Amino acid sequence: MELVAGIDLGGTDTKFGLVSREGKLFAYQSIPTNAEIGHELFFEQLSDSIQDMVEALGPGYKLVGVSVGAPTGSQKNGTIDNASNLNWPRKLPVANILSANFNLPVSVSNDANAAAVGEMLFGVAQNKKDFLCVTLGTGLGCGIVIDGDLVLGSRGHAGELGHVLISGNGRECGCGRKGCLETYASATGIVRTANELIASEEYPKSVLQFSENGSLSAKKITKAANEGDELALRAFEITGRFLGRTLANTVALLNPELIVLTGGLSRSKELILEPTQRNMEENLLDIYKGTVELKLSEISGKRTAILGTAAFMWLKLDSLSKQTA
Amino acid sequence: MELVAGIDLGGTDTKFGLVSREGKLFAYQSIPTNAEIGHELFFEQLSDSIQDMVEALGPGYKLVGVSVGAPTGSQKNGTIDNASNLNWPRKLPVANILSANFNLPVSVSNDANAAAVGEMLFGVAQNKKDFLCVTLGTGLGCGIVIDGDLVLGSRGHAGELGHVLISGNGRECGCGRKGCLETYASATGIVRTANELIASEEYPKSVLQFSENGSLSAKKITKAANEGDELALRAFEITGRFLGRTLANTVALLNPELIVLTGGLSRSKELILEPTQRNMEENLLDIYKGTVELKLSEISGKRTAILGTAAFMWLKLDSLSKQTA
Repeated sequence: MELVAGIDLGGTDTKFGLVSREGKLFAYQSIPTNAEIGHELFFEQLSDSIQDMVEALGPGYKLVGVSVGAPTGSQKNGTIDNASNLNWPRKLPVANILSANFNLPVSVSNDANAAAVGEMLFGVAQNKKDFLCVTLGTGLGCGIVIDGDLVLGSRGHAGELGHVLISGNGRECGCGRKGCLETYASATGIVRTANELIASEEYPKSVLQFSENGSLSAKKITKAANEGDELALRAFEITGRFLGRTLANTVALLNPELIVLTGGLSRSKELILEPTQRNMEENLLDIYKGTVELKLSEISGKRTAILGTAAFMWLKLDSLSKQTA
Repeated sequence: MELVAGIDLGGTDTKFGLVSREGKLFAYQSIPTNAEIGHELFFEQLSDSIQDMVEALGPGYKLVGVSVGAPTGSQKNGTIDNASNLNWPRKLPVANILSANFNLPVSVSNDANAAAVGEMLFGVAQNKKDFLCVTLGTGLGCGIVIDGDLVLGSRGHAGELGHVLISGNGRECGCGRKGCLETYASATGIVRTANELIASEEYPKSVLQFSENGSLSAKKITKAANEGDELALRAFEITGRFLGRTLANTVALLNPELIVLTGGLSRSKELILEPTQRNMEENLLDIYKGTVELKLSEISGKRTAILGTAAFMWLKLDSLSKQTA
């Protein structure tokens, strides 16, 4: 059986696994992203671990490609850019390094694009040609697929939906500007909203009123909302309003058939889906009303990034085999 | 020489001409869009006029394709939809009708997409792969090109940048909603802005103060601004601010290398270009700053729509000849 190695390279841990064309995860491992040993040695050790994994599966299994996903992975250049906390070169030529180690096709992607391709090959976007995949995590990322192809943009920076400005003088964003969507619609955004609601003292009965400063999380807000807490429900309503309105504007530009929500905050399921859907629909131009599905990802937890990254390589291999056929 | 017939079908007049692969217009004619005689007879007469035009050029010229552009033209379906003031069928199968008349390839497009393809083949977007073409006319239309292909969207309705909501409770739009971009950034939008400035009585010295109610136009505002009128200049500043900010958000999504401004209001040149560019640049995320060109279309006047529509067919013929090569 042919397998692709999917590598999810994070600032703290690097997770990797072997993924079949059908999206089955055959092996999984996590190692610390060790910056101290230098990137050469790190990728040598990583490559050895992957080779060992394949051999451990037995003679019927064959590695046919390697794919890396990282927050700042550049598909266009085959690099990981500005991974500053790792003390690596500013543009690390990870595609070249892994090609040399494996002598196999290598692809590089960022998280949001990998998630979109993962949904297209293995998830709720199968057989869809025009869709968005919105990752609601610490920030908000977006992979855009048009006519079956991922949109990269002229310099590979398309999909920064999280940095669409939704308010002229809104919340401060890590990017240095104010009012970016991700300061409202993300796992951290909903915490900011809940903290504002707590400070307003309008919800004295909320269980969240007694949260210690800094202890609130999207998970806690979700738990409270599921128990009917009004402050928590209000926080989801506000988050869904900002996200739904911005998605309505995105629909006007791109007319997708589907929008997938994934990432940490999407695990609150109906709590985020319902207000987002309702606010999107209310703000759609007539011609789009009732034509855009909004769905939660069904790929869960730790598998998401590895499957998405591997999907990237499978897509590349599919396209290569079409060309030679 | 091979020529394509480009037809610009409007509610009042239908303009058409013969266009070479290099974008040269060889003949031009305009006839009233006669709804009274029924669409069958109208298209028969139009087809005859085009055949006559080709014959008049002499034996060296050959028609190789026919292309229709209309505000509600659907490339996906080959139809003109809901041309209600024309008393035609709700979905007029114009591609089928013209195919039968000419026995040649036929394409259908809407105005905004035709303008984008016109810029790509004959205008300032030549050799560009990722760009937007924004038409500032009565409304605001937008053709989106990604990786060299026009974005149609799942139902052919992509590019409604004019109906992106920029204000929660803004100006009333013809679409029934409030705050759409085109109520601010268009030839009619700038008139509304100027009228608001007149009503504010903050510009007593403006020559536009004495405009009779309803007599203001984008052309008059442009003339006044070119003469240094402060109210008129302020109207351009406000228009550029709304347009520039929204374009910055669009850049975050699609990372284009170029945005072309065309349509009536773009004829005010630097007056609209400068504030739009400045406001776009100010609102761009760092990674995009200085990377997006904003340019005025250089295709002028009556030729724009015909050239754009013809470009559509040339693109189709290019792609057909590549497939058979």
